[in-house]
Amino acid sequence: MIKVGIIGAGRIGKVHITSIATRVAEARVKTVADPFLTPETEVWAKSMGVEHTTKDYHEIMNDPEISAVLICSSTDTHSQISLEAIRAGKHVFCEKPVDHDVKKIMEVIKALEGTGLKYQVGFNRRFDHNFEALQKTVAGGNVGKPEIIKITSRDPEPPSPEYVKVSGGIFLDMTIHDFDMVRFLAGCDAEEIYVQSANLVDPAIGQAGDVDTAIVTLKMQNGALAVIDNSRRAAYGYDQRAEVFGSLGMASVSNDSQSSVQLSNSDGVTEEKPLFFFLERYMDAYGKEITEFINAIVNNRETPLNIEDGLKPVLMGLAAKKSCQEHRPVSIAEIISEEGL
Amino acid sequence: MIKVGIIGAGRIGKVHITSIATRVAEARVKTVADPFLTPETEVWAKSMGVEHTTKDYHEIMNDPEISAVLICSSTDTHSQISLEAIRAGKHVFCEKPVDHDVKKIMEVIKALEGTGLKYQVGFNRRFDHNFEALQKTVAGGNVGKPEIIKITSRDPEPPSPEYVKVSGGIFLDMTIHDFDMVRFLAGCDAEEIYVQSANLVDPAIGQAGDVDTAIVTLKMQNGALAVIDNSRRAAYGYDQRAEVFGSLGMASVSNDSQSSVQLSNSDGVTEEKPLFFFLERYMDAYGKEITEFINAIVNNRETPLNIEDGLKPVLMGLAAKKSCQEHRPVSIAEIISEEGL
Amino acid sequence: MIKVGIIGAGRIGKVHITSIATRVAEARVKTVADPFLTPETEVWAKSMGVEHTTKDYHEIMNDPEISAVLICSSTDTHSQISLEAIRAGKHVFCEKPVDHDVKKIMEVIKALEGTGLKYQVGFNRRFDHNFEALQKTVAGGNVGKPEIIKITSRDPEPPSPEYVKVSGGIFLDMTIHDFDMVRFLAGCDAEEIYVQSANLVDPAIGQAGDVDTAIVTLKMQNGALAVIDNSRRAAYGYDQRAEVFGSLGMASVSNDSQSSVQLSNSDGVTEEKPLFFFLERYMDAYGKEITEFINAIVNNRETPLNIEDGLKPVLMGLAAKKSCQEHRPVSIAEIISEEGL
Amino acid sequence: MIKVGIIGAGRIGKVHITSIATRVAEARVKTVADPFLTPETEVWAKSMGVEHTTKDYHEIMNDPEISAVLICSSTDTHSQISLEAIRAGKHVFCEKPVDHDVKKIMEVIKALEGTGLKYQVGFNRRFDHNFEALQKTVAGGNVGKPEIIKITSRDPEPPSPEYVKVSGGIFLDMTIHDFDMVRFLAGCDAEEIYVQSANLVDPAIGQAGDVDTAIVTLKMQNGALAVIDNSRRAAYGYDQRAEVFGSLGMASVSNDSQSSVQLSNSDGVTEEKPLFFFLERYMDAYGKEITEFINAIVNNRETPLNIEDGLKPVLMGLAAKKSCQEHRPVSIAEIISEEGL
Repeated sequence: MIKVGIIGAGRIGKVHITSIATRVAEARVKTVADPFLTPETEVWAKSMGVEHTTKDYHEIMNDPEISAVLICSSTDTHSQISLEAIRAGKHVFCEKPVDHDVKKIMEVIKALEGTGLKYQVGFNRRFDHNFEALQKTVAGGNVGKPEIIKITSRDPEPPSPEYVKVSGGIFLDMTIHDFDMVRFLAGCDAEEIYVQSANLVDPAIGQAGDVDTAIVTLKMQNGALAVIDNSRRAAYGYDQRAEVFGSLGMASVSNDSQSSVQLSNSDGVTEEKPLFFFLERYMDAYGKEITEFINAIVNNRETPLNIEDGLKPVLMGLAAKKSCQEHRPVSIAEIISEEGL
Repeated sequence: MIKVGIIGAGRIGKVHITSIATRVAEARVKTVADPFLTPETEVWAKSMGVEHTTKDYHEIMNDPEISAVLICSSTDTHSQISLEAIRAGKHVFCEKPVDHDVKKIMEVIKALEGTGLKYQVGFNRRFDHNFEALQKTVAGGNVGKPEIIKITSRDPEPPSPEYVKVSGGIFLDMTIHDFDMVRFLAGCDAEEIYVQSANLVDPAIGQAGDVDTAIVTLKMQNGALAVIDNSRRAAYGYDQRAEVFGSLGMASVSNDSQSSVQLSNSDGVTEEKPLFFFLERYMDAYGKEITEFINAIVNNRETPLNIEDGLKPVLMGLAAKKSCQEHRPVSIAEIISEEGL
Repeated sequence: MIKVGIIGAGRIGKVHITSIATRVAEARVKTVADPFLTPETEVWAKSMGVEHTTKDYHEIMNDPEISAVLICSSTDTHSQISLEAIRAGKHVFCEKPVDHDVKKIMEVIKALEGTGLKYQVGFNRRFDHNFEALQKTVAGGNVGKPEIIKITSRDPEPPSPEYVKVSGGIFLDMTIHDFDMVRFLAGCDAEEIYVQSANLVDPAIGQAGDVDTAIVTLKMQNGALAVIDNSRRAAYGYDQRAEVFGSLGMASVSNDSQSSVQLSNSDGVTEEKPLFFFLERYMDAYGKEITEFINAIVNNRETPLNIEDGLKPVLMGLAAKKSCQEHRPVSIAEIISEEGL
Repeated sequence: MIKVGIIGAGRIGKVHITSIATRVAEARVKTVADPFLTPETEVWAKSMGVEHTTKDYHEIMNDPEISAVLICSSTDTHSQISLEAIRAGKHVFCEKPVDHDVKKIMEVIKALEGTGLKYQVGFNRRFDHNFEALQKTVAGGNVGKPEIIKITSRDPEPPSPEYVKVSGGIFLDMTIHDFDMVRFLAGCDAEEIYVQSANLVDPAIGQAGDVDTAIVTLKMQNGALAVIDNSRRAAYGYDQRAEVFGSLGMASVSNDSQSSVQLSNSDGVTEEKPLFFFLERYMDAYGKEITEFINAIVNNRETPLNIEDGLKPVLMGLAAKKSCQEHRPVSIAEIISEEGL
């Protein structure tokens, strides 16, 4: 039985607590730490079988019984807490992104070296039933050699300007998931990125220095081309689709909805909107990623998304940001060189 | 070049004139006869290359140049004009049904014997791209041995009570198309029919002595079961679907719409309604059936729907009518025996 | 906290144990009883938080702490154990059917009278996301007055002849779910039933005295017509669809599949089969029905499916059986009269 | 009655001859001219009601009875024959593109000035039932302000290297249709274009100096972003889709297939491929564009696609070509300036 400590009891922290309680037989949440822990959360955590709650996450670091830590705190703390956990000899599951600063991710990479500890980054969409099946279809050779990869990723509602200011920008905050997805589907890394973007959804996002609509073109190392289209607001809900076109055909996945009800009347034939909220769409994927993390520990095998998988999308995000600013294609090699890697 | 005479220049007559003019290289419409011929129709017919128009269809019968006749007049004249055309040595395409009276159809059958003349009945739906492809899929063995055949057939708008009174009732007027379709898809005849019906759409239809909603269950000679559901009014348009389930799987066809536009907004995901009107849905099928009729003449081969195919659905309609009246399953054998065939 | 006893630790018993452990905060499984309890099941039950396991279900009846019983034992024990539980003052959730013998169900009805105990029957499909949404759409008036209700219900694989012999026949074993569904969708009871059936799937089923393919036509009390088509074997998986057609339009639901992957290649455009197994398709529905049962106890309100809802489908099954045997439409009134209700 | 001369009796010339013969009551083809006219084509043309055939198109220019000319000859002759026809006082329908050389299109523009003659360019896809409905949906405000426009355009089979050499390159030969479509859907012109492309389908295409796979990103004058993805080979047929995303939602259109047959078996659920060939997919659109051209003459109104609509996509193609060569975004203004317009 793996004893787990969870740092951060916000929305995602609670999802993981629930997953471990209900789906992962080999693990138990011993301690939940959150500096803003409320009595309600404490009661709820107890009802989910959590042994202990605290405002100080160092209790988790210092508890020799706890062998695995889930970092669900705010993004700016991810790399620092990762380092502390690794130094305390604990396996780490860290929400995305590890950091926006490549140097800090490199510190985590170095800290991990030789420890044998497992490290997994929370790119949950890889575990979504649709994307997982798409990747298997492509990896199984059903579309032949991939030539064009298309990802549509649109949020149901724009973030607040306050959030935008601290988010690192759309490419490190939102597109980063799609950068991971394009690596997952292509089975290789990106070489070059070009961004065409605009501020169309909310002027306040532009005033906060960011864009809200983007078309990102990529050249992948295997020669395939890829394109991601993003919007911070889709009136019909959370839009998460992908398509892989290759020498033998095309595979695609569409959105999920609450039911398959189709209503035909004098106005037309109407079906339900896609699920509106990312937690609805990806709830099962969150459960699967944690199961895989615990399995990697129990069976002493590689996690499905290691620290390198945390680094690469950040490099892509930085290339996208630069392309956006300088209005030209930017290679990943240029970013690597700049970062002195 | 086959010279054709068309009797009846109503809606369907005009469809056939157009088809021959634009799609059938081997035939030309020489004469169109209609007792209620209007000047507008005459002008239009000329523009379609029709040589001659008349109010007296006997001109067609007496014209030795005309070798084929299309009977598009009112139902009560079909069998009589068929007899006259056969006696005049002309090939006949007759709109459905040949007659509601089995004895009159038998007269046509007898008149045809030994003449070598071609006779085709206008069950146009067999030539619809969807139903044709479904039949080929089933006949090709893709669903294995057929076990359950389902046909949905719903009109967009109910007929007038006046029409209902002279229509022969829903089973001989509307379901007769579905009786032909179930024979087409099953590849055999029906053995027994049971009707559960109701007057739900328009009380005037009930007052005219008919029903407007029906579920017709059939046992086919090959052992398959079949079910037809009919309504005289579908708020969303003309609903024409079918499904064949068998030992190896299921094949189905759905409706056509004007375009594939799909609109996703905060109300849901909406597509177009099915095409509303039978002429929109089956325009191409009307062209194909006439092409096949002319081909049968030119190549001296069997028509795809001969006079027997005109008789069988009428027997089924009579069985359905009796089942409806006597509230019990009725075998086709019982109808055959009653009719003294 | 409601303490629950579960009688029968087979496939469905385990599903309910899991649901209570992971989804129902207000209840805990105290005791699981099964005469064939294996050590594996004991270990598993403990891991799910079950306090106690036993081979003797009387321990549950005699435990004053246990206020609710789930009856998941073999069908022939349902009514007897229901009576014992009611007499022991316990709320009852009973898997379908309560009994094939109407008189035994009547005994349960009488035993319940005046006790204030909750009784729920396990027609799980009402809680399926698709059927639930369809019912809401219809009940919300979106299709107007219902006129034609169609249910397709086909199992992926036929049962063994041994099972068929003790099953009560297809209408009480399999169609009974569809009888419940047609009541749910129509919002009323059936008046009359007609069966057209055949033995097409497996001759051994015929030798065991049953049919395996059926089309069941129903007249509902609200005037709507309904039709159910059943097969004991669908090569493409578990086929569970429904359609409600009414004065203003039509609403329908289709099957679920594992993912939305669509593969386009030179062979066509291929999607996944429906989920093959009823546990995959209805797992979430099983969780919801138990949640509703516990909610009914906690909030002292009516269960969504009471003992009357257990009786009605059995009456329909008996009418279907008689229609099949006597080859004629059979009214529910006739069955009620025969049973002396 | 408009008398029409058709120059070029190849594949497209024949399509237009058929359309005029069967769909356009107000026009007749008087003369067909083709330097490589075969006896078979002559016979066929006569059967379609064509009065006269010749190898010398000057006969058409010199015939005062002919008021409209359709130019269906090879691309390199389009602008020269356009000029001759305009000087002869004839209305012109010209297959796309008018020319690859902007200066030559400008000559046609100048020649047209003040003549009152109608000029239409053959971007047939605007008349496709799907794209036409999509444009109407967008123009009707149903998706709000357009923000992201996506066009997928993939040919079923790559062209021969010989063709590639004289084609003007993928952007002027194939993408040019998509450039017209993006203008049609956006309702405005493009401002800037960026191309990411590759030679993945056939090395011979690369050796001929062209690419066969491309992702083209555009910034439109109304602020919307757009992306076109092209491939010269789709294993599953001719892939022609589009999607317009805006502030209120999204509208999309998919491909057409021969029938709606869906086959469910143990391998999955399979539908037909998209129509394989552009003539199958766009046959009806070809008929509509010619009808519109004749209507514009008869009613003395603007053609739906005038000479400016012929120029703009060529400017876009030149920008794309330059972007591809110089690996940077290229503005339309830059091309206009270069061309001295």
